[in-house]
Amino acid sequence: MSFQTFHPPVRTLMGPGPSDVHPRLSEALGRPTIGHLDPEFIRLMDDIKQLLQYAFCTQNELTIPVSAPGSAGMETCFVNLVEPGDKVIICRNGVFGMRMIENVERSGGEAVVVEDDWGQAVDPQKLEDALKAHPAAKLVGFVHAETSTGARSDAETLCKLAAKYDCLSIVDTVTSLAGIPVEVDRWGADAVYSGTQKCLSCTPGLSPVTFSPAAVEKIRNRKSKVHSWFLDLNLVMGYWGEGAKRAYHHTAPINALYALHESLVMLHEEGLENAWARHATMHQALRAGLETMGINFLVDGASRLPQLNAVFIPEGVDDAAVRSQLLNRFNLEIGAGLGEFAGKVWRIGLMGYSARAENILLCLSSLAAVLGAQANGDEAIQAALRQLEN
Amino acid sequence: MSFQTFHPPVRTLMGPGPSDVHPRLSEALGRPTIGHLDPEFIRLMDDIKQLLQYAFCTQNELTIPVSAPGSAGMETCFVNLVEPGDKVIICRNGVFGMRMIENVERSGGEAVVVEDDWGQAVDPQKLEDALKAHPAAKLVGFVHAETSTGARSDAETLCKLAAKYDCLSIVDTVTSLAGIPVEVDRWGADAVYSGTQKCLSCTPGLSPVTFSPAAVEKIRNRKSKVHSWFLDLNLVMGYWGEGAKRAYHHTAPINALYALHESLVMLHEEGLENAWARHATMHQALRAGLETMGINFLVDGASRLPQLNAVFIPEGVDDAAVRSQLLNRFNLEIGAGLGEFAGKVWRIGLMGYSARAENILLCLSSLAAVLGAQANGDEAIQAALRQLEN
Repeated sequence: MSFQTFHPPVRTLMGPGPSDVHPRLSEALGRPTIGHLDPEFIRLMDDIKQLLQYAFCTQNELTIPVSAPGSAGMETCFVNLVEPGDKVIICRNGVFGMRMIENVERSGGEAVVVEDDWGQAVDPQKLEDALKAHPAAKLVGFVHAETSTGARSDAETLCKLAAKYDCLSIVDTVTSLAGIPVEVDRWGADAVYSGTQKCLSCTPGLSPVTFSPAAVEKIRNRKSKVHSWFLDLNLVMGYWGEGAKRAYHHTAPINALYALHESLVMLHEEGLENAWARHATMHQALRAGLETMGINFLVDGASRLPQLNAVFIPEGVDDAAVRSQLLNRFNLEIGAGLGEFAGKVWRIGLMGYSARAENILLCLSSLAAVLGAQANGDEAIQAALRQLEN
Repeated sequence: MSFQTFHPPVRTLMGPGPSDVHPRLSEALGRPTIGHLDPEFIRLMDDIKQLLQYAFCTQNELTIPVSAPGSAGMETCFVNLVEPGDKVIICRNGVFGMRMIENVERSGGEAVVVEDDWGQAVDPQKLEDALKAHPAAKLVGFVHAETSTGARSDAETLCKLAAKYDCLSIVDTVTSLAGIPVEVDRWGADAVYSGTQKCLSCTPGLSPVTFSPAAVEKIRNRKSKVHSWFLDLNLVMGYWGEGAKRAYHHTAPINALYALHESLVMLHEEGLENAWARHATMHQALRAGLETMGINFLVDGASRLPQLNAVFIPEGVDDAAVRSQLLNRFNLEIGAGLGEFAGKVWRIGLMGYSARAENILLCLSSLAAVLGAQANGDEAIQAALRQLEN
């Protein structure tokens, strides 16, 4: 057997994540590794906590990156907050709501499911009905930005409903953080998790989380031990907590945290509001171009995420063949449909560093090239450019 | 608030991990990110699986990196193999044996603890006594290389004892893999986990694991769902499994896997046996130097790990002051004692790329400089050089 150094192709990443990684982050990743208890590293950890508070719009002390991908961030929220027997209301309108149900059950809780069609926002009325019907419920979980459909739900209304019925809220912001407003304190959300490889445009592998004081209190006063040793926040807090003295829990992924830090520094330089505005503008340009090509959106305008564009695959078009041509001829990755939308939609991401004008032109022109004459490539690009010039 | 790019100091890492990262790996880390379902990435995954089989000396199909640090690798083994009510024998001779007990209990199992003194190898006779006394036991867990003490246990004998009494074995090789022989198939071990930041000299954040066919069968036939969705191998196998078609489970930490791949390519180039020999030689040189300085080892020669040198702090010497001077004056990190050895021992790592002649000279000369006249720096270095020239 012979093995060689791996040289990845250079792709443009316009799927549902990972998104394009800025060269400043690649550079950060390769910097010298230091120890996870090195005083300089602890200084970096403090910076990361502050920058995550900025990104989440929160003062929550317990605001840290979990040392594993977004799915582990979701699990951190559920495994710490659900105690055996707890009743938990989950609003399901896509793949990630389903995963929340799995998490409730594996944590020993009982899930009450509020259903909405895939591609729709969560209906607050249905949540309130469920809260009234299940007064013993202790937690409400929902997905702010459903990565499987591109639908955006009204997090503030849903969190406030949960609070009104004495429930803590768990919110998935994997795809929303830094792309649209995620205002944890304003919402009154209690446990919020995200990922690094979406609108933060960092490499995958870490999951930023934040917990309100009420959530921390529930975790500190659990009657049973958290199922997971690795994700037990009572232990993790000893490492990520206050002061210069940090207790070893697990070895932090040092270099990945360099990159997360750099991505947050860049977000802070740009300004959160500017990042939100950029995602909105780029979405309008891509939308104009796609619609000109006769490609239609799954989610209606009011609930549509700018950073995750789920569009119907035109009739008679071979899903896999198109995606593979985009990849092989133009090094462009767009996403397949997930769950009940597999083979029916494409998911085109405009996340973080991927949300820029040159990516939109590449996406429209290569789609036009692959789809052939009926795609109106020139007109689509003109329509996109008009939006960019606005 | 103002935030700046983080420029870490350049340290020499001779603690219990992370170890020095070779520039080839830093370069790999910064390569362009591609998608976790990109055909080129799937080719990389296949390479990584084969290279991990090489490193673990196994033909086990289920040989993959878990997308989180070593503690999550430990948890993967326990949470998948322990079913509620299962009796599990844990051999405890240090911090990581204690952590195994936590894992058993949090997975719903009942731990039977076989105790050995910290700094001693696990006594096979005690394990056999426990197996006889607990015929219902289903699993045996032990640490091959205790990172908290530097003690090495006889994994082959312990695994064969487990098998003799119809138990599956779970083995911690976090600190041993690539530093001393880890021969999974020869041992007949059933579930083995490791870390990337020790003798593989990769950045922290991933945990290589391997499972025997018998372990996979137990996991496939569980009566209850695995507590953890993120670590459930029944699901993870759909992504890391056979064939070109991979089902999305979680987003793999792409760039971290580039670095792991490169570290394994380097191990394959050097050859496993040569890597083991290098660790042994470097240990002899460091040992000769330290002993010349009057610094004594915690673990006796027969059970001593070459890559993790736990030595008693000389009387009258201020532990924290010395470590902090080494760090601040010479950018050299050595490890503090852990658990019952906190303040009593230092742990000096010679792992992976850290196990080289120049590091030994730096360690001995800077220790001598900090400890002062009585340390015999010149003689210590001469003693080390004699070993290196052998």
